[in-house]
Amino acid sequence: MTETPAAQLSAAQTSVKTAATRYAFLGPFGTFTELALRQFLQAEGVTITSNQPEEIEAATGLKLLPCRDVGQALKMVREGEADRAVIPLENSVEGGVNASLDALVHGEPLQIVGETAIPIDFCLVVREGIKPEQVRRVGTHPHAWAQCRNWIEDHFPGTTHVPATSTAAAANLLTEDRYPGFEAALCNAVAAQTPGLVTLADGIADNPNAVTRFVLVSRPGRTPAPTGADKTTVQVRLPDNEAGALLNMLEQFSARGVNLSRIESRPGGGRLGTYEFSVDIEGHIAERRVQAALTGLHRTCPQVRFVGSYPRFDAKPNTVETGTEDSAFEAATAWVESLLTQD
Amino acid sequence: MTETPAAQLSAAQTSVKTAATRYAFLGPFGTFTELALRQFLQAEGVTITSNQPEEIEAATGLKLLPCRDVGQALKMVREGEADRAVIPLENSVEGGVNASLDALVHGEPLQIVGETAIPIDFCLVVREGIKPEQVRRVGTHPHAWAQCRNWIEDHFPGTTHVPATSTAAAANLLTEDRYPGFEAALCNAVAAQTPGLVTLADGIADNPNAVTRFVLVSRPGRTPAPTGADKTTVQVRLPDNEAGALLNMLEQFSARGVNLSRIESRPGGGRLGTYEFSVDIEGHIAERRVQAALTGLHRTCPQVRFVGSYPRFDAKPNTVETGTEDSAFEAATAWVESLLTQD
Amino acid sequence: MTETPAAQLSAAQTSVKTAATRYAFLGPFGTFTELALRQFLQAEGVTITSNQPEEIEAATGLKLLPCRDVGQALKMVREGEADRAVIPLENSVEGGVNASLDALVHGEPLQIVGETAIPIDFCLVVREGIKPEQVRRVGTHPHAWAQCRNWIEDHFPGTTHVPATSTAAAANLLTEDRYPGFEAALCNAVAAQTPGLVTLADGIADNPNAVTRFVLVSRPGRTPAPTGADKTTVQVRLPDNEAGALLNMLEQFSARGVNLSRIESRPGGGRLGTYEFSVDIEGHIAERRVQAALTGLHRTCPQVRFVGSYPRFDAKPNTVETGTEDSAFEAATAWVESLLTQD
Amino acid sequence: MTETPAAQLSAAQTSVKTAATRYAFLGPFGTFTELALRQFLQAEGVTITSNQPEEIEAATGLKLLPCRDVGQALKMVREGEADRAVIPLENSVEGGVNASLDALVHGEPLQIVGETAIPIDFCLVVREGIKPEQVRRVGTHPHAWAQCRNWIEDHFPGTTHVPATSTAAAANLLTEDRYPGFEAALCNAVAAQTPGLVTLADGIADNPNAVTRFVLVSRPGRTPAPTGADKTTVQVRLPDNEAGALLNMLEQFSARGVNLSRIESRPGGGRLGTYEFSVDIEGHIAERRVQAALTGLHRTCPQVRFVGSYPRFDAKPNTVETGTEDSAFEAATAWVESLLTQD
Repeated sequence: MTETPAAQLSAAQTSVKTAATRYAFLGPFGTFTELALRQFLQAEGVTITSNQPEEIEAATGLKLLPCRDVGQALKMVREGEADRAVIPLENSVEGGVNASLDALVHGEPLQIVGETAIPIDFCLVVREGIKPEQVRRVGTHPHAWAQCRNWIEDHFPGTTHVPATSTAAAANLLTEDRYPGFEAALCNAVAAQTPGLVTLADGIADNPNAVTRFVLVSRPGRTPAPTGADKTTVQVRLPDNEAGALLNMLEQFSARGVNLSRIESRPGGGRLGTYEFSVDIEGHIAERRVQAALTGLHRTCPQVRFVGSYPRFDAKPNTVETGTEDSAFEAATAWVESLLTQD
Repeated sequence: MTETPAAQLSAAQTSVKTAATRYAFLGPFGTFTELALRQFLQAEGVTITSNQPEEIEAATGLKLLPCRDVGQALKMVREGEADRAVIPLENSVEGGVNASLDALVHGEPLQIVGETAIPIDFCLVVREGIKPEQVRRVGTHPHAWAQCRNWIEDHFPGTTHVPATSTAAAANLLTEDRYPGFEAALCNAVAAQTPGLVTLADGIADNPNAVTRFVLVSRPGRTPAPTGADKTTVQVRLPDNEAGALLNMLEQFSARGVNLSRIESRPGGGRLGTYEFSVDIEGHIAERRVQAALTGLHRTCPQVRFVGSYPRFDAKPNTVETGTEDSAFEAATAWVESLLTQD
Repeated sequence: MTETPAAQLSAAQTSVKTAATRYAFLGPFGTFTELALRQFLQAEGVTITSNQPEEIEAATGLKLLPCRDVGQALKMVREGEADRAVIPLENSVEGGVNASLDALVHGEPLQIVGETAIPIDFCLVVREGIKPEQVRRVGTHPHAWAQCRNWIEDHFPGTTHVPATSTAAAANLLTEDRYPGFEAALCNAVAAQTPGLVTLADGIADNPNAVTRFVLVSRPGRTPAPTGADKTTVQVRLPDNEAGALLNMLEQFSARGVNLSRIESRPGGGRLGTYEFSVDIEGHIAERRVQAALTGLHRTCPQVRFVGSYPRFDAKPNTVETGTEDSAFEAATAWVESLLTQD
Repeated sequence: MTETPAAQLSAAQTSVKTAATRYAFLGPFGTFTELALRQFLQAEGVTITSNQPEEIEAATGLKLLPCRDVGQALKMVREGEADRAVIPLENSVEGGVNASLDALVHGEPLQIVGETAIPIDFCLVVREGIKPEQVRRVGTHPHAWAQCRNWIEDHFPGTTHVPATSTAAAANLLTEDRYPGFEAALCNAVAAQTPGLVTLADGIADNPNAVTRFVLVSRPGRTPAPTGADKTTVQVRLPDNEAGALLNMLEQFSARGVNLSRIESRPGGGRLGTYEFSVDIEGHIAERRVQAALTGLHRTCPQVRFVGSYPRFDAKPNTVETGTEDSAFEAATAWVESLLTQD
């Protein structure tokens, strides 16, 4: 993986060092999600040097559990078969990962306890012995294809796409005896090192700043301690058929000086015209202004789900406007209390 | 006084029946403020049948203390020489009574504990023996003059105004031997009954719906219990030189579904361009949405003064939007608490 | 008049130099309003050196028409008996001058074409031969009394107030043979020079920064040209019984980046709970953002009255946020036009 | 296709009946997009009875041009190789179709001129002779898989997914001699009728109300005439790093009484934390309130793209609040004009 485009990115230090030993992730081994998982572990002081589950478990005591999709990874956590799941949540080019956004908030509650970001670029690999001029079809995940299409058009004009369930799966298929329906695969730098493959080009990305944000998910429990550079994720369903409902929701934040760093609309209830919003706000639920904003949402929106407070991957300190510090809330509350008790 | 225009008005039942015995009011006896004072007392079950201080005290044990201006009446309360003060706060035609609005919130804290409203109309009185055609000049308080000017112009064209310190004072001057500089006075129905005076016309009011709102003021202490039809008065200084400061202040109310029933701007700090606002909101400080709004004001405005929660004179129940009931606030707070303590 | 407290104040250059020759003002000669009138004339290059109407007319061709109250001064303009009126609109200590605010916007339309500001302080004068220790009662206009009360209390404790129709009238009464009911008068520096009077103290002002803002009023007509430092005054009636009506009104301004420099609530329709607002905004009606805001008000409020665009007395340039310049409005309009006409 | 769930849906009558003869669409034949295309044509009075391009062209004079992806379909329109494109824009379960949302607004301008909605459910098909118990792997487009996963889990537990480029492509592969890697396909009712296939089940949809909204796209040109039940789509980039930028954008709508019916955030500029919004508003650009809102966006947002005004598929009339009718805008503008020209 070429580190240059976003060398500043590092796994946010998760503050909850529990006895988590079983990590589900969007598999198979060799995907970007596995890279994200490694960053989370590294931040906790664990370095993975193998991609063989047995070797990893022998060396670190950790079980790494690749899953066929995000839903399965989250299900393992929900059902207690895994302690944590690592899933992609947002790509700087493609936008929110809908399947993740939805799976996270439907069903039993889950909580985000950490995030990290990975610069996204790809390698074009072929089986040993295949020449570039033999490449007619490229296997990869549709998202990878979308992010490399221009480069392919420029360097391998006329090449067509064969969808695969993951970039790593496409790379693996090339090593099998049977012809997989394509001559080359787009995969990440880890999968490109699979024995039997040759890299024709690396660092491929139509948008050189492409980054994917991954989150570490657990069952509801203790929230990571505030660091001063935190994010809180909530899912909010708006009242139906109410003009200005979104404006009203945003005013619940602005009245407490709480900034939004992300807002994604998602369908609500399976009908056109009904929306839920997945929102990231700056700050931690341990902070009064965040508590006040959530209180306001709970009162005015038919449904609010707290999806976690956790350190930002970029460690950028939250701005706290004058009058929205904890001390300002405490002074204000104390004042109102004094009015209620005067005699 | 003609009771018809606003017969529905009655003194709000003040819920604090303390041992208040000394009432300062904007005097002298015979003004509308004295009428308001009587309404407050009637609401507590005390009927005044005399306008002689000694007789009143003998009959009821209450000391009624007429003051030369609002400032003096409030000073008596601030300094403990009176238990309550009655002052006019707002006229439906003239607007806020600036002297009252300012005197109430500058200096030692005071608290409004009740309000009432009095329909305002006037009698034109002369000394016995004076004929209508002899009336050239009319003595009265400038506010009374302002509210009867058209009527006078129609019925006594060419008549001019001689300012007096109060409507009652003008009436009284007519009974003195010395010529007071005017032949007639505009005063209220009580003062018109002063022996020696004859009423030429009554029910005079250019605006037949004119009403003045009076408040009952005490030193800070126990707030009247909520009735479901309450008002809370606050004084707010806005941040200087901040575009949108007023909008921001109003959003602190709207974010909690709190309606304003009155807003008056007053100069702040004696400079043009700096404002304070005197605001009445629907609701009682015992209610969570009012507390939340005040908390927000306290955080975001350089100065907020609580001036009291008290029953509305018109007993009109406050509207409480869905999501702003106490129960909604409690459920929301409990929810946030549960997130903070989960483990 | 002591010039120190606000020497920076000067009459705003009114850009409309019409053949205005008849000036009504809140009289009599010797009031602060006359001082304001002189500032307006000076800004047009006319210096008044006398206070005798005949001498002034002989020297300058101008008729100065003192009126007994603001209503009369405005009536003279409305009825064509005067070309301009000068009236006080706002005092930095007392707030808006209610009589002026209301008289200006009720009845036939009038337009403010200029403003100026005068520092307010007073002289205590007596008739020649009267000693300070003889002063028991002080005649003056109630507003003047309100602004000097503390000083009087400190220097002439126990002295009481006798209301007069103006500060100048009080001073004049002292020169008459008949005892006016008071020994001293509070008046301005001009009136203090009335022959026969002696000044006991000058520069009297409880608030040393007290300033009154005066406006120059004409019948509707050509608006003074924009200077880049302008103010626009509007009167707005809010929709009845609509929670958030004030917030909505303010959003009509903020959506166009228009700042408010003053807002005064006034009773609307003579009922408690119904309000109009007198609003000053930064900018000139010749500017697109002001036009857009007025358009929005006209659509959403039951009544809006344009009361004039005119240069600010302090010549402080208006801030124009990015995206609210005329050029931004023109580009945006041109863009929408282009969408409508494409084919 | 089972018509019950959304029988009320019908192709909106597009009002621009140009000589459009070449229709690009997200192919191949047999997809839901082809169904949408047929609805658009039916609304113009053209019924397609074949799925052979040559037969269609012979019968109707229309060229139907299946494309491998949305980008290609739009490119054909941009480059003049097609007159119209039909693409999916939003699914009631999955949310916005990101590829469509982005392709529509990046590159040369395009304009939506119509929309329609199609209830989404699927058939499970196999090659003749295959028994249900032989089905181990199901080929289909990932979106189709996502919408039937629960049904498959219930009825064919343990079955896995093989991604295909479209539902129709998966169905077609089953008819080829070579084993495609799966035994069954999920496709729509049209593709299920492909000769050689047998339908095991139809009406499959985890969410029985699933609906996809499709749009008809042309190069910029004449906008369909307003019908009173219209929608306008815009793409807005927010100012960077500005707290409250989204709130400000929404206030540009609310200040003109313009309601939003959809808002989708999309990444802006390829960086996390920078957003564009794809917004549908109620109303037509021929209406003044929509023009005013767009003018406001153009001034305050760094980039706004008009993507079309067109009739709503559900023909639900737009609500027009009092004060936001064209007549209100015209009256307001006329009033401001009158102020500018008075003399």
